[in-house]
This record gives sequence, C-alpha cells and structure tokens, in this order.
Amino acid sequence: MAEAIALVGCKGPDQEAEYLRILSAAMPEERLIPFRTMDDAARAAARVAVVANPDPAEVAALPGLVWVQSLWAGVEKLVGAFDRPLPIVRLVDREMARTMAEAVLAWTYYLQRDMPAYASQQRERVWRPHAYRKPSDTTVGLLGLGALGTAAAERLTGAGFRVVGWSRSPKAVPDLDTFHGADSLTAMLGRCDILVCLVPLTSETRGLVNAERLAALKPGAALINFARGPIVVTEDLIAALDTGHLAHAVLDVFAVEPLPTESPLWSHPRVTVLPHVSGPTDMDSAAATVAANLRAYRRTGQVPDGVDAARGY
Amino acid sequence: MAEAIALVGCKGPDQEAEYLRILSAAMPEERLIPFRTMDDAARAAARVAVVANPDPAEVAALPGLVWVQSLWAGVEKLVGAFDRPLPIVRLVDREMARTMAEAVLAWTYYLQRDMPAYASQQRERVWRPHAYRKPSDTTVGLLGLGALGTAAAERLTGAGFRVVGWSRSPKAVPDLDTFHGADSLTAMLGRCDILVCLVPLTSETRGLVNAERLAALKPGAALINFARGPIVVTEDLIAALDTGHLAHAVLDVFAVEPLPTESPLWSHPRVTVLPHVSGPTDMDSAAATVAANLRAYRRTGQVPDGVDAARGY
Repeated sequence: MAEAIALVGCKGPDQEAEYLRILSAAMPEERLIPFRTMDDAARAAARVAVVANPDPAEVAALPGLVWVQSLWAGVEKLVGAFDRPLPIVRLVDREMARTMAEAVLAWTYYLQRDMPAYASQQRERVWRPHAYRKPSDTTVGLLGLGALGTAAAERLTGAGFRVVGWSRSPKAVPDLDTFHGADSLTAMLGRCDILVCLVPLTSETRGLVNAERLAALKPGAALINFARGPIVVTEDLIAALDTGHLAHAVLDVFAVEPLPTESPLWSHPRVTVLPHVSGPTDMDSAAATVAANLRAYRRTGQVPDGVDAARGY
Repeated sequence: MAEAIALVGCKGPDQEAEYLRILSAAMPEERLIPFRTMDDAARAAARVAVVANPDPAEVAALPGLVWVQSLWAGVEKLVGAFDRPLPIVRLVDREMARTMAEAVLAWTYYLQRDMPAYASQQRERVWRPHAYRKPSDTTVGLLGLGALGTAAAERLTGAGFRVVGWSRSPKAVPDLDTFHGADSLTAMLGRCDILVCLVPLTSETRGLVNAERLAALKPGAALINFARGPIVVTEDLIAALDTGHLAHAVLDVFAVEPLPTESPLWSHPRVTVLPHVSGPTDMDSAAATVAANLRAYRRTGQVPDGVDAARGY
C-alpha cells in the first residue's frame, strides 16, 4: 500500500467530502483518504494525518504517523494525548487571523454600542438612549498576543480603541501597552473595560479567568471568550455577573460543545451565547497553508514547527 | 438690551445647563441665553439662535433672527417652517461623521455576523452555527453620500466590505461604485445585501424606501435606517419582512419618537429597535464647530452656508 495522508475528525460525511475536495485540489500531488475508509495496510502506511476535531484514539490507530497537521488553531485535545512524542502542527492561517480579528471588533462594538441593553429594552418596549462612550475612552484588554491576538490588536487600534495586551512571554506590539507573566496580569486587568480571551488552552490557562481575576477587572467591565471554554471558570463568571461587577459576557466557547440544554448560561440575561462561530476555518485558505506545509516537508524531510509540548501550544 | 445668542430646544434643564456650559466655554466672547429665560427685549435683540430640537414657534418668536445654527445634522422640522426666509445651518461635524460611520460598521457587523439569529437561537437554546459570509462577499449600499455617507463608505471599505452608493446628484467616492438620480436607484438596490439609509428627509426622500424599492433589493437583504423615520414606509417594510424577502431591519429613527408603545415594530422578530443612538451629537466637538461658524460670521458678516430651501438640505 502506497503512502496516503489520513483525513481524521470531520463532522460528518458532508464536511468530510467538502474537506477532501478542497484539500485534494490544493495538493493534487498527494493522496488523501478519510480515516474511516482506510484499511489496515493504508493505516499502517500513513505518515501524516490532517485532522479537524479528531477522536485521539483514531489518530493513535495510525502507528506510522510522523506528524499531525491540524485544521484548527486550538489543539489542546491532541497535545500529550499519545503514548509517544508526535509533533502536532496547529493551523496558523492568515485568513483565520483576519476572521477572528473581525469577530473581536464586531463583538467589541456590540458591547461598546450597548446592543445587549437595547435588545432587552426592546422586549420591554422601553425607549432609553444610553450615554455614548467613545472608543478612545474604552480600553480593550487582550489575553494572548499570538497570531490572533496581534491581528485583533491591529483592528481595535485602527478603530480607535485603547488596547492593552497580556502574554505569557514578553511581546512588543505596535500601539499597545503589553504586559507579560503571571505577576502583571492583575495590573492589566485593572485597566480593562472589555477583556477578550485569545489564549490557547494549556495547563497554565485552564481556569485562568477565575473569581480573583474577574474581581480585578474594572466594575462594569465585560468579557469576551473566543478561545476555549475551560479558560473561564463558569461558576465564578456567573457570580460576577450576578453581583453586577461584570456587566456582560459574550461566550463563543464552552467546556462542553454544543452547550448542554440545561446550562444556566443559555438564559442568563447578561450572557450572549454563540455556537463557536468567532473564528471559522476558511477551508480554501487553510488548504493552501496545509499544502505549503506538506510540500516543505516532502522537499526537506523536516516536520514543520509544531506545538511545544511543555508549554502546550 | 445688548445682543445675546438664543439657545432653543434643549431636552430639559440638565441638557440645557450642559449645552450652555460647553458652548459658553467654546466661545467665551459670546453671551448665550436660554430662550425660556429671555425677556421681550432680549428676544427682540437676538440675531442668532443655536438650536437642538426646537419648537419652530419658539424660533419664530425671535423676530430679529438673521440665521439659525442647528446642533443636529437633520433639520427637516425647520426647513420652510417660517413665514420669511431664514437661513438654517445644519451641524456638519467631523466627530458626528466618525460616530455615525462607526455605527454603520457596528450594525453592519451585527447583520453580517448573524447576531439577530444567534440571539433568537439562544432564547430557544438552539446551537446552530450559520455559514460565515466574508465582507468581500457582502455588498453594502449607502443611500446618501454626504458627509455621513462618505465617512461610512470609508469605514466599510476599510473593513473589506463591497460598497455601492447612491446620491441625488453625481458624487465620486474612492473605492466604490456610485449611482445617482431616481432612474439608477433600482440598479443600485439590486446589488445590496445590506441597505443603509443616510439621506436627509426632504419632499423627495419621504417614502423613498417603499414596497417597490424593497422588492428591488436582493432576496434575504437587510435594511439599516439611521436617517429619519419617514424615509421608510413602515407598512411596506413590515410586509417585506413578513414574506422573508427582507431578512432583518435595524431601525434607529421613527416617524414619531419615542416610538409609541403600540407600534408593531417593537415586537417584530425581524426588527431591531434602537432609541435614536446611531449618531449622537458630541457637544465638545459640536461646540467647536458652532464657535468657528459664529466667529466667521462676526468677522465677515456673512451667514455660513445653510440649507438649500429648494432641495431641503
């Protein structure tokens, strides 16, 4: 059996057919086969897997894999999931950075322009303009200054917002005050009218936004979580919303997705629930990125830069 | 009695005190007196009125007026309201253009990012992502290419949207296809995914967005009205929403404001009602513009360019 690339973890036959078509068009020199249709010989021969949201057991059932290319930016389910070192390459895609930065600006406007308050007033037939707050009087804090965070920072500063950013290690980004390391997080939070989570989920960021961190935000601040659900402690979030210390939360990601029907978040008046739509993968653009990674690998034999297993992203 | 400038049409004593303070600080060389506290001699001596949302009868009770400076961009209540020619100078203010352009982008994102659909799904606890539509695949049509329309066009093209514009007379604006005159309106409407009203209310624009114009929009298009209520025919709008030809309407302005409690717009599932907040007057900026107009008038004796009574804006 000649080597073929395994496609793992699509959301159903329609998505699988679509991804197969777009990826094959971007790299016609490669043979792509869905994991579920591979026989044992094909599974044994696979050296590279391209994965969407795979069951790690399916990836583990490809014993000859040299590396894994994810179609997602967040790969926390795969990091450390295997009993041998297996490089995981996350999607770092310009189009996803654009889409996510757009989402950050769109939902920042949603909060700055009081859209949740006007929606609730409309249900009560209440006509009450709220005082307008300029972007130049509104500070947006970005938790995470990777490809997505820096793209968001650029959009927000372009729209006139004051932007501060925090990252694990020191980063310099034009036009914003940056903070780094655990010790400076409280100082950064104290400046935020709107806090936006864009950090990867790792052992360090799990539960990062807890009661203590929420209390450090300005009274009346709002939260946007476009990263991963477990970064925010749900009970602490609800408590901060209930006291009014936090005015609103826009949540696009959850510990369990789809968000279970019984979750209190669905009906909380200060919560906007989104079904994981902030930074959709653009398959045309992602396929071009994946094809470029594959070609570099075929040419050089070098696995592309992957996730650092120790830091988790 | 020495000449003083009359301040007319503030929304209550708090707004009057605030406007008096900010305007007086911007032009300490002028004496400003609220209309309601003026005696007959002061009323007779007034040559200039600065007005917010005045009762035209109060303006008419200032017999010596030479011209009127409005703090609003829309002055349709004043044009032709007096039994003598009285120049009306509308507020053309850079900060208002910025605020309005920001509102156009914010509520364009609201529609492009399917926020109304997600809000309605949240009430039903439904998790259903909608296909993402890029700005480059979304055409926004601007009805009106004055100071506000051109500022909005710049913001939208900067965010990657395709923009077309329509105006009464020919206008060239960078990066967008422009149409002008009644004959070309249908052609422009046929390209719009989102139509934004930014025209002044005149005898020509009253009822401009009627059944015929709504039918000319692409199926599934949306409407944003940030101009004046009577530009859109409410019954025709509701009919187009009910058939689904129009997917959603964001309305910030109404024929009667505040919108009466009995209006069917409040509870229509495809309507977002806003309490006239899209382009708030920024008093600091407006006061600087007004002061500059007053100083030019004192220096030259020339009344600043006002509304053309024939065209109505």
